Amino acid sequence: MEEKMSDKVLLAHGSGGRLSHDLIAGHLMPHLKNPILNRMDDSATFGLNCRVAFTTDSYVIKPVFFPGGDIGRLAVCGTINDLATSGAEAKYLSLALIIEEGFPIGDLERIVSSISTTAAEAGVVVVTGDTKVVDHGSADGIFINTSGIGVIPEGVDISGSGAKEGDRIIVTGTIGDHGIAVMAQREGLKFSVPVESDCAPLNCLVSDILGVSANIHSLRDPTRGGLATTLNELASQSGVGIQIYEDRIPVKDGVRGMCEILGFDPLYVANEGKMVIIAAPGDADNILDALHKNKYGKDATVIGEVTSKHKGRVVLKTALGASRILDMLTGDLLPRIC
Amino acid sequence: MEEKMSDKVLLAHGSGGRLSHDLIAGHLMPHLKNPILNRMDDSATFGLNCRVAFTTDSYVIKPVFFPGGDIGRLAVCGTINDLATSGAEAKYLSLALIIEEGFPIGDLERIVSSISTTAAEAGVVVVTGDTKVVDHGSADGIFINTSGIGVIPEGVDISGSGAKEGDRIIVTGTIGDHGIAVMAQREGLKFSVPVESDCAPLNCLVSDILGVSANIHSLRDPTRGGLATTLNELASQSGVGIQIYEDRIPVKDGVRGMCEILGFDPLYVANEGKMVIIAAPGDADNILDALHKNKYGKDATVIGEVTSKHKGRVVLKTALGASRILDMLTGDLLPRIC
Repeated sequence: MEEKMSDKVLLAHGSGGRLSHDLIAGHLMPHLKNPILNRMDDSATFGLNCRVAFTTDSYVIKPVFFPGGDIGRLAVCGTINDLATSGAEAKYLSLALIIEEGFPIGDLERIVSSISTTAAEAGVVVVTGDTKVVDHGSADGIFINTSGIGVIPEGVDISGSGAKEGDRIIVTGTIGDHGIAVMAQREGLKFSVPVESDCAPLNCLVSDILGVSANIHSLRDPTRGGLATTLNELASQSGVGIQIYEDRIPVKDGVRGMCEILGFDPLYVANEGKMVIIAAPGDADNILDALHKNKYGKDATVIGEVTSKHKGRVVLKTALGASRILDMLTGDLLPRIC
Repeated sequence: MEEKMSDKVLLAHGSGGRLSHDLIAGHLMPHLKNPILNRMDDSATFGLNCRVAFTTDSYVIKPVFFPGGDIGRLAVCGTINDLATSGAEAKYLSLALIIEEGFPIGDLERIVSSISTTAAEAGVVVVTGDTKVVDHGSADGIFINTSGIGVIPEGVDISGSGAKEGDRIIVTGTIGDHGIAVMAQREGLKFSVPVESDCAPLNCLVSDILGVSANIHSLRDPTRGGLATTLNELASQSGVGIQIYEDRIPVKDGVRGMCEILGFDPLYVANEGKMVIIAAPGDADNILDALHKNKYGKDATVIGEVTSKHKGRVVLKTALGASRILDMLTGDLLPRIC
């Protein structure tokens, strides 16, 4: 099929003038329309009477389409999940696009359609947005920023600084899926059993566990830097030690195999649909029961506990019974993974 | 002076691991610290009990430093001003950086320091953030996204769809300063009297006029696409005609001269510290008095009125008495101006 100029994003689509309006009205709004966004004012307005969570993330993942997701689904899930780490239910998203001149409008629509589908799945609405276009060579395809506002239910107070001695550490499923799926796609590697990104919105999962436990102390999604880096952040913020057990950490065979071949440690590989939960030991069974009923938590398991020893550090008990300190990720394992 | 690796942003600074933490703790937090951000959770939390405005903008301006401002000041002002168009007082900002590998850390600190100074001037706080690094050649220096949450005072209801027949159209100062200042810097052009960007936070200015008039119907900052495009948006959203008078529109001599040489029309050149105000005719004098007392409104003037004729269109009465239709900007006058 012949490629036409009209199939590509042009610099003038970012001018703020007629072509910007045409791009937004013709290709973005059909996917995103809702009563707040439809007003097309420079800011969205709505009422709030509660404690809220507010977060932002830019997404620069390469490639933009990968097994199990795309940059659009990722941009919705990542921000929803950051809100969920405060126990907040995501309500309102902003969407800001930086597009390289020449980017195919068909790919743009595919991404925005995925944003729409994922937002609908999670029950959030895109209420405000921005589109910039930069000259060819000044960006790599498309970068997306989403910011989000979520509502924190009455009585919920969850923070990375809330972990207490004796708390159990739960991970909601297998680790490393996202990073390995993206890396394999990027490098053209093949699996015997394909690994898909776990990219998913976890607001309902978090809502489910808040319904069965009032003693959830910390939540964090182990994205860049993987499970090991996230646990280090939590140990440091809470001023506690963390001990985890290698043989309890769920890892898919395909991910483990690819990590062995490439010399990666799955503990440092990014996830986009998993949550680390730190909660009082007496509530662990109830939380696991609730998780197992949700499709995004069926492989959830307790992987360790919070200790008063080695404060600020994470210790891994290996399958052979040895202990080793797990540090944060140093250097960059997989750039542009989110 | 010898250039060291440690003076540059590295890909690993975006890993989410140790180097990311070092960059944030060593170079960003010293400028931005505040009680909410200091918690270093994945989302900021705070209470709200009001009608709020929410907006987002990405900034891709080239060059990042220009006469009268920089990308950091712009990223704070642009988002504050978008909130102000709803009559909202900006309170909370997010800050998301996409940095090209190799970007000088000194420039990054200069930008973040400017963000801090501008936020302090405007009385807003950066409460959540994100830092991504992409490989050399995959972005052009630095792109910044800010999203903002503002509080709308009781009883205020301002929208681009609120303009009514007979309303006066006020512009808060000279037009085209930002676009011409940036273009001159980019192209190495010299003025006899230098033109500086008007980049400024207008939240106090808007608060001042809300204090003297309950009949402000529409506000919009004429950024990309300039005054002409903004007036077209307002005419279209409100379903009214707009008539403005060429000889009443304030333009600096330097801007006019540069526009004449280059064949630009200042009506289409971007502003970053100006507001278009549409208000009931009886309140125009009070509004002008309030504007003239604020340093960002001293050149404010009435440039026209809302009419029931030529609905959805903007008509310019020229200095010679002729009428011509002012359309939205078509094509791209000055790319990457914000």
